[in-house]
Amino acid sequence: MALGEFELIRRFFDRPTAHAGVVHGVGDDCAVLAPSPGHQWLVSTDMLVEGRHFLSTVDPEALGHKALAVNLSDLAACGATPRAVFLALALPRADAAWLEAFARGLFQLADAHGVALAGGDTTAGPLNLCITAMGEAPAGQALLRSGAQPGDTLWVSGTLGDARLALEAFRGTVALTGEAFAATRLRMERPTPRVALGQALRGLATSAVDVSDGLLGDLAHVLAASDVGAELQADALPRGAHLAAQPLDLQRLCTLTGGDDYELVFTAPADGDDAVRAAAARSDTPVTRIGRITAEPGLSCVDAQGQPVPAPGASFDHFRNP
Amino acid sequence: MALGEFELIRRFFDRPTAHAGVVHGVGDDCAVLAPSPGHQWLVSTDMLVEGRHFLSTVDPEALGHKALAVNLSDLAACGATPRAVFLALALPRADAAWLEAFARGLFQLADAHGVALAGGDTTAGPLNLCITAMGEAPAGQALLRSGAQPGDTLWVSGTLGDARLALEAFRGTVALTGEAFAATRLRMERPTPRVALGQALRGLATSAVDVSDGLLGDLAHVLAASDVGAELQADALPRGAHLAAQPLDLQRLCTLTGGDDYELVFTAPADGDDAVRAAAARSDTPVTRIGRITAEPGLSCVDAQGQPVPAPGASFDHFRNP
Repeated sequence: MALGEFELIRRFFDRPTAHAGVVHGVGDDCAVLAPSPGHQWLVSTDMLVEGRHFLSTVDPEALGHKALAVNLSDLAACGATPRAVFLALALPRADAAWLEAFARGLFQLADAHGVALAGGDTTAGPLNLCITAMGEAPAGQALLRSGAQPGDTLWVSGTLGDARLALEAFRGTVALTGEAFAATRLRMERPTPRVALGQALRGLATSAVDVSDGLLGDLAHVLAASDVGAELQADALPRGAHLAAQPLDLQRLCTLTGGDDYELVFTAPADGDDAVRAAAARSDTPVTRIGRITAEPGLSCVDAQGQPVPAPGASFDHFRNP
Repeated sequence: MALGEFELIRRFFDRPTAHAGVVHGVGDDCAVLAPSPGHQWLVSTDMLVEGRHFLSTVDPEALGHKALAVNLSDLAACGATPRAVFLALALPRADAAWLEAFARGLFQLADAHGVALAGGDTTAGPLNLCITAMGEAPAGQALLRSGAQPGDTLWVSGTLGDARLALEAFRGTVALTGEAFAATRLRMERPTPRVALGQALRGLATSAVDVSDGLLGDLAHVLAASDVGAELQADALPRGAHLAAQPLDLQRLCTLTGGDDYELVFTAPADGDDAVRAAAARSDTPVTRIGRITAEPGLSCVDAQGQPVPAPGASFDHFRNP
């Protein structure tokens, strides 16, 4: 089915619903956004490429969800309230069924968070999705990577490693039951951005990052930005029942280096455990304490007996892991 | 030369210069932007794909300029003061010489407008550039497509059609002298976004759009959004000396339907000629009056004698003109 560019936008992506902060959405040279007084804007961009971030056979509805989820996760890691997203799409062809499913997945998640699709661009080309997400936080309250202090506690939301376990099953290196494959695949294809937790941690967490490339790699960014080290309790890392049923080496590989989980890793003052648990309860998000920040640089990983755990490999880098 | 993703960003794109409105740029999950009190944000996204928006042989420095210029042009069309841009890049390989030239072209234009590169994303993939640009305007003063009124005058900045003339020379349908080819090619490859004019037209122009897809097509968006028509003086359209030396049919094709000029087309109240000329002088940008807005819908194109000029074809659509 051949669709023109403007018809495509009108039919699938122009939904003139009122959203907080959006004065004027799709349909002009720019969108017009109204910041809340006293707030700052938090902005993140992610580009997803076929064959690298997703397979050509991916369910387009799941892809619509995930493309938005990874951006909302960046906003969550900064404690932002999501307001608007911009979608640029390169498409090999204008396929109405594909676009309809993709838009459904995207808008379901957008609606759940009250986020407007406020603009974008479409062009022909190899399949590529670029989303820019914008949110707000009261001035000075954005969670950054640079605020971790020696003595802070280290936490993670939800569970780690399911997305990597599903990827290993896709690769054929692990055999899973049908139920385990379905459950972990759902984690990989439909991640949950921890938006409510991020907001609840404003004014409490000293730093935060989301786990997109793997815990070790993402945590290393926090340590470098904050000029601190960390001691990580490898066996304390929360994992789901399907991953917990696997050999310990695989569990550690998945929890320590698995990407695509989109959980939040954050630090908080040593005396803030009760406040962290209250924020978690308020945002209906499980959290687990997994270590502490040290003055000595470097990341040490220990088991339940305090013995060093060898790191199972680096996190993902788009130009080094082709 | 193999470069890692984070090294690539640090080496070519992380320039921690202070910019108005940017609290925290490259290096966290989100950039942190501080809106000016009483202002709104104007946001635009454009995606450029190799083989469609530029050739694989393009000079990377010119590409860096143009990728940013087309976004700044969208901000200009809304009367925004540019503040920050976000760059997502899919690259077939991390080629240091290419990236250095691309970054040089981009930053030269960014610096000329005081714009920060505040964040982005890099990944491997077929060459694709997605830029999201953000600017500010006092609340309620953004220039939109929807404000044109019957009786308004219709204007355009600079000259039209050079980019299309260069394209026709590349295609081999037109033979140009070396000087004419060099000059028009510069217009195609290094367009000038009319940022200062856009700001000078705040509170004066009743509508505006930039000419990216061709005058007829872009003007049609204004007419539709404003629910008006227009009478366009085809022979009054400003054109450079190289285009003016071509046959009249080709001149009309290039000025009426040529894309990639990035001039501003705008409307102003009938008694506003002096104010428009003053704004043009203030922003050091030539402008020409090219017609008027009518209550009757539709776009009529007339010659110097008031006789209808047949429209030479539709403007560009990415899914209809492959």
